[in-house]
Amino acid sequence: MSELFRFPARALRDAATDSRAFRVSRQVRFHDIDAAGIAYFARVLDYVHDTYCSYLESTGHGLPQVLSDGEWAAPIGHVEVDYFAPLAFGDALEVVIALAHLDGSRLTLGHQIVRQGKVACVVQTTHVFVSRRDFRPTSIPAGLLQHLERLPKA
Amino acid sequence: MSELFRFPARALRDAATDSRAFRVSRQVRFHDIDAAGIAYFARVLDYVHDTYCSYLESTGHGLPQVLSDGEWAAPIGHVEVDYFAPLAFGDALEVVIALAHLDGSRLTLGHQIVRQGKVACVVQTTHVFVSRRDFRPTSIPAGLLQHLERLPKA
Amino acid sequence: MSELFRFPARALRDAATDSRAFRVSRQVRFHDIDAAGIAYFARVLDYVHDTYCSYLESTGHGLPQVLSDGEWAAPIGHVEVDYFAPLAFGDALEVVIALAHLDGSRLTLGHQIVRQGKVACVVQTTHVFVSRRDFRPTSIPAGLLQHLERLPKA
Amino acid sequence: MSELFRFPARALRDAATDSRAFRVSRQVRFHDIDAAGIAYFARVLDYVHDTYCSYLESTGHGLPQVLSDGEWAAPIGHVEVDYFAPLAFGDALEVVIALAHLDGSRLTLGHQIVRQGKVACVVQTTHVFVSRRDFRPTSIPAGLLQHLERLPKA
Repeated sequence: MSELFRFPARALRDAATDSRAFRVSRQVRFHDIDAAGIAYFARVLDYVHDTYCSYLESTGHGLPQVLSDGEWAAPIGHVEVDYFAPLAFGDALEVVIALAHLDGSRLTLGHQIVRQGKVACVVQTTHVFVSRRDFRPTSIPAGLLQHLERLPKA
Repeated sequence: MSELFRFPARALRDAATDSRAFRVSRQVRFHDIDAAGIAYFARVLDYVHDTYCSYLESTGHGLPQVLSDGEWAAPIGHVEVDYFAPLAFGDALEVVIALAHLDGSRLTLGHQIVRQGKVACVVQTTHVFVSRRDFRPTSIPAGLLQHLERLPKA
Repeated sequence: MSELFRFPARALRDAATDSRAFRVSRQVRFHDIDAAGIAYFARVLDYVHDTYCSYLESTGHGLPQVLSDGEWAAPIGHVEVDYFAPLAFGDALEVVIALAHLDGSRLTLGHQIVRQGKVACVVQTTHVFVSRRDFRPTSIPAGLLQHLERLPKA
Repeated sequence: MSELFRFPARALRDAATDSRAFRVSRQVRFHDIDAAGIAYFARVLDYVHDTYCSYLESTGHGLPQVLSDGEWAAPIGHVEVDYFAPLAFGDALEVVIALAHLDGSRLTLGHQIVRQGKVACVVQTTHVFVSRRDFRPTSIPAGLLQHLERLPKA
């Protein structure tokens, strides 16, 4: 994990609306709430990972198929979240893949959780593409790479 | 699923403390709470399944080993829960496998969620033992059966 | 909990498609899967409860508003699930409120989890409407009752 | 969130065993596993938060009591995780609060998830102590601060 790439949280929060970003709408659910009455802090990772799955599907590389093909995987090596405002039950959210950074076998995605036009938190996830044969880093499959290169850059 | 066996909920609730019952202590966690401020109704199934895993381990048939051996599985065919009282964050619970009913390939377990000596809810789960070769019903492995027969009966 | 109402699981499984039923589409998610490689048995309760929340919203009695109004609540007193087939990652599901049974303060909903036109499991949930003042049973609010009466009956 | 404090992930991974660290043992559960067959990446946040709750309880400031007292809260403003090795169903873990950094109203905790003596992942969480009256930053309660100061420092 030498020289980890990170988007500056502020840059990620302020990333302008970009038509190339990938967006999914969802709501804060009843069982996302914790004993403090707001969305449990780890739930935003579900929001982001569900959106990542939808994104992969939109590129023709749906994760169910990828897993059954057994050629590559892209486990998460690093994740971080900055929370700017709490989320409440029923809040309508837009979960956005706002930025992508590509570096060899590594893909860092910058996500925004947007509520009423304001970014309530930002999440970044670093995936490392590995071969399922030996679990060593491998290049990102060309078909997927084409799609990833069309996501907004920092 | 013909002729499903059920413990009467009341009998299960009132099942006396029995030294042959299997017990695990735990607490209602921060992220078990829902937007109504009490433990989310489905969380008791986690409590019960975690206890079932601890029980299997105590018999020498831990589920991680069973899954990697690949000889049998015991998927749940039916589950039901009766809720008598809500659970709050931090509540100290005893999760009890209070009753067992054996019928060929089928095992029905009756569980109590006990708080301060009172049964707050009862759960019953019916497992069907199947061979991993063809997923058809199979007899309960003899070593495990011996243990199951020592659990309290209705 | 005297004289609990239950839909026969088979009747619920075989309930015909009815235009008055309430339906939500969703997929089995990455983190719904368990160590046995299929959807964790308790996840179907999330599917059903999320659909119940969408239903309430469609009637104009969204749960976030109901909770903040603080007049009534409808905690679940009983739930049961029959599993006919396992669900896999990525499966496209239709979650259906297929049947409703009304009895004073009690509402029993019969749900189907449908995959490729086949019912993979059925779930029933019994809610008890209570006043938030004293948590005693109360009548179902008239505006909501009107909607509930339009759901299919057994 | 100006000038966020972070433990270097490597320093946190290599932090020596310290008798002042706080430790809880647990196992990777059946329903922690995801469709890739390993513990879902967000589950380590549950492990860490459960341990944080146990720690607070050990200091006499259990979160259930703190929440009902309604004087302060300590929401998480930032969290990050570095994953060094995947976790499998049944793995015996030690979840360690290995390092603490105090800075006014801010507390950064460095956690290790240890399996068989090796650190499989490190997690850091930054809490901001706020008054429940106005949700503005406030000093860490003296009684709790005394305990926090006894945790290992970087």
